[in-house]
Amino acid sequence: MVQVNGNYLKLKAGYLFPEIAKRVNLHAQKSNNSNLIKLGIGDVTEPLPNSCIDAMTNALKEMGTNSGFKGYGPEQGYSWLREKIAENEFLSRGCSISAEEIFVSDGSKCDSSNILDILGKDNTIAVTDPVYPVYVDSNVMTGRTGNALKNGGYEGLTYIPINEKNNFSPEIPKNKVDIIYLCFPNNPTGATITKQELKKWVNYATKNNALIFFDAAYEAFIQDEDLPHSIYEIDGAKDCAIEFRSFSKNAGFTGVRCAYTVIPKSIVGKDSNGEEVNLWSLWNRRQSTKFNGVNYIVQRGAEAVFSTQGKIEVKNLINFYMNNAEIMRNKLKLAGFKVFGGENAPYVWIKVPDQMSSWDFFDYLLDKANVVGTPGSGFGLAGEGYFRLSAFNSLANVNDAMERIINI
Amino acid sequence: MVQVNGNYLKLKAGYLFPEIAKRVNLHAQKSNNSNLIKLGIGDVTEPLPNSCIDAMTNALKEMGTNSGFKGYGPEQGYSWLREKIAENEFLSRGCSISAEEIFVSDGSKCDSSNILDILGKDNTIAVTDPVYPVYVDSNVMTGRTGNALKNGGYEGLTYIPINEKNNFSPEIPKNKVDIIYLCFPNNPTGATITKQELKKWVNYATKNNALIFFDAAYEAFIQDEDLPHSIYEIDGAKDCAIEFRSFSKNAGFTGVRCAYTVIPKSIVGKDSNGEEVNLWSLWNRRQSTKFNGVNYIVQRGAEAVFSTQGKIEVKNLINFYMNNAEIMRNKLKLAGFKVFGGENAPYVWIKVPDQMSSWDFFDYLLDKANVVGTPGSGFGLAGEGYFRLSAFNSLANVNDAMERIINI
Repeated sequence: MVQVNGNYLKLKAGYLFPEIAKRVNLHAQKSNNSNLIKLGIGDVTEPLPNSCIDAMTNALKEMGTNSGFKGYGPEQGYSWLREKIAENEFLSRGCSISAEEIFVSDGSKCDSSNILDILGKDNTIAVTDPVYPVYVDSNVMTGRTGNALKNGGYEGLTYIPINEKNNFSPEIPKNKVDIIYLCFPNNPTGATITKQELKKWVNYATKNNALIFFDAAYEAFIQDEDLPHSIYEIDGAKDCAIEFRSFSKNAGFTGVRCAYTVIPKSIVGKDSNGEEVNLWSLWNRRQSTKFNGVNYIVQRGAEAVFSTQGKIEVKNLINFYMNNAEIMRNKLKLAGFKVFGGENAPYVWIKVPDQMSSWDFFDYLLDKANVVGTPGSGFGLAGEGYFRLSAFNSLANVNDAMERIINI
Repeated sequence: MVQVNGNYLKLKAGYLFPEIAKRVNLHAQKSNNSNLIKLGIGDVTEPLPNSCIDAMTNALKEMGTNSGFKGYGPEQGYSWLREKIAENEFLSRGCSISAEEIFVSDGSKCDSSNILDILGKDNTIAVTDPVYPVYVDSNVMTGRTGNALKNGGYEGLTYIPINEKNNFSPEIPKNKVDIIYLCFPNNPTGATITKQELKKWVNYATKNNALIFFDAAYEAFIQDEDLPHSIYEIDGAKDCAIEFRSFSKNAGFTGVRCAYTVIPKSIVGKDSNGEEVNLWSLWNRRQSTKFNGVNYIVQRGAEAVFSTQGKIEVKNLINFYMNNAEIMRNKLKLAGFKVFGGENAPYVWIKVPDQMSSWDFFDYLLDKANVVGTPGSGFGLAGEGYFRLSAFNSLANVNDAMERIINI
């Protein structure tokens, strides 16, 4: 009989968001109240920007004509999109990233897990705790961890706490690790990192020949002008960091699917003989073989994000969600909660009342206020006792949800 | 320093189609004649069906409104699309495949390589020769083969010839293998398989507890009513076969990206303790963790393929390309070539003139006729001496290309 990948059997529980969906569905069946407000999964709610709709409408029209039809595109993305990204997201901030170093894909969830394909099994891995569960689960699935531990973690992974005790500024690990996942602005805590702090991580990676996976999915929400939007704003990062970016949270492409991964050509790993191997080449080969590029219409939509009108519309979307976040911060504080994040990120991270677990609080909010959030423990051990609320919703729903929470 | 996945270094040469693109670009730079006709890569050329354009236009409009906006969809695809697929592609042929057993994705190239994620490393693998290179390369990349051999193959893989000697009907392997890749109508040879022959494979898999990966990407091109469109038309296949399907070649979605994989819930593998594990559950977990679903607009376009008008338009597209194939078959025979395929598949497989290798013939056709095809050896050892021409082009280009070849 065919053998399965036994690493999958180490996975402890269902993936966080399906588990939330299950509980919400059960709740909906039990209660007749359908007036549920979802501040759980980090999914945008506002319509696509007009400039994206217009560009996609035009591209769709082209696809219906003989002269404009496009079949397979380049697996790496169309050069006109890669050039716009390089210019607007990197060169404009003084980061010398070229279009060729940008790989367009259908999502950062895919990229941040598929990236492991090109790397050896024996690299040691560090993640923050709490953390986006995909980083951990994709390592478990590919046999880079041991078994699940009783505390919710996995053997063999290095967990770096990011919590109140360290003021949400994770400490450089004392042991040597090969790969480090960093996400700033942070999901789930909404914490940020300064250039000075990020420089420490780049220095650590440089000194230890480590590789940083930098997830900048939420960079568009940064309000503080001094905070870095890209790890390539830090000297030396081009030799040790891969960056993941997405159109999901800035232009609202969660249902459209477009993201990109930056692999500078200067990054090398080593093979079993200790010879240097270029990671860009390996990823290029991986994408050419196992991926067939992103929908042409979608890439035209993504390109429109960088038009004059597109930039204004994206800015308005960000302002809209950040206004929600501010309302949430203020109201939740009034309600007596200890509140973190939400200033440069669309996530507000609150401490749950004493004696309650994160999942207790999830059930409590769902039951008493018809509000869905995300239990902090779903993001890892150090998330226990916290709760994530997302600013992605309509103003009316955010106001309503806050009133309900205050009035429990 | 971070270790790379050394298996990538076993890969012999560039992926076939980028290599073709490189030679074509070089040719374009050297010659001033830009009148190139591409019958190489199997990429469709006709515009999207109107019913798909209409459905996608409506979906795109929805995405621009508050009430119609869709964020993250189900990782497995929307149920309304999965139900349409089950009904039209399987139940209508007497195959009891449920909507839940269908996983919608952004491409069969992705699915047929990602499927290896859920399977153990030590399964023995059989591929036909010649074969779609992705099957082989994805196995090399994941360490399921030994080193590259001088003959172009890889150690550890079982190659099953599909050629003139066996009348393009591959023989059941004599040794026991765990996983078998079959693609019918076949890429690249254009060969077909009868129900009787396919039954032999299902029997082999049943008897040996093997798993069949059945790639039915070209089923829409079948003209002979007795040929199977799905492996599930064969009794017993639901216990031993995973099927890959795509909207790329029937509705022309190569630039749109939508496909699906069928994993019947009855298929099991075993873990290291010999316990049975359900493959559906593993793939569901894989997709939930490492994939974020297909664009909503695209799924509405795919749904329209099953509308009354959509079916007519797809049929017209197939007829159009199959008329090209017939012209190619007839003209190439007139030109003295030995011609295979092209009767139930969009590929015509010709024997190259004696003393020439497949790549020699590629360069010869490019140089003398400005026609691009695909060298048979690019698909494996047994493809040497053959050449693939694709029927995906305009009628004018097909006629022109045939005249040029005849007049060399």
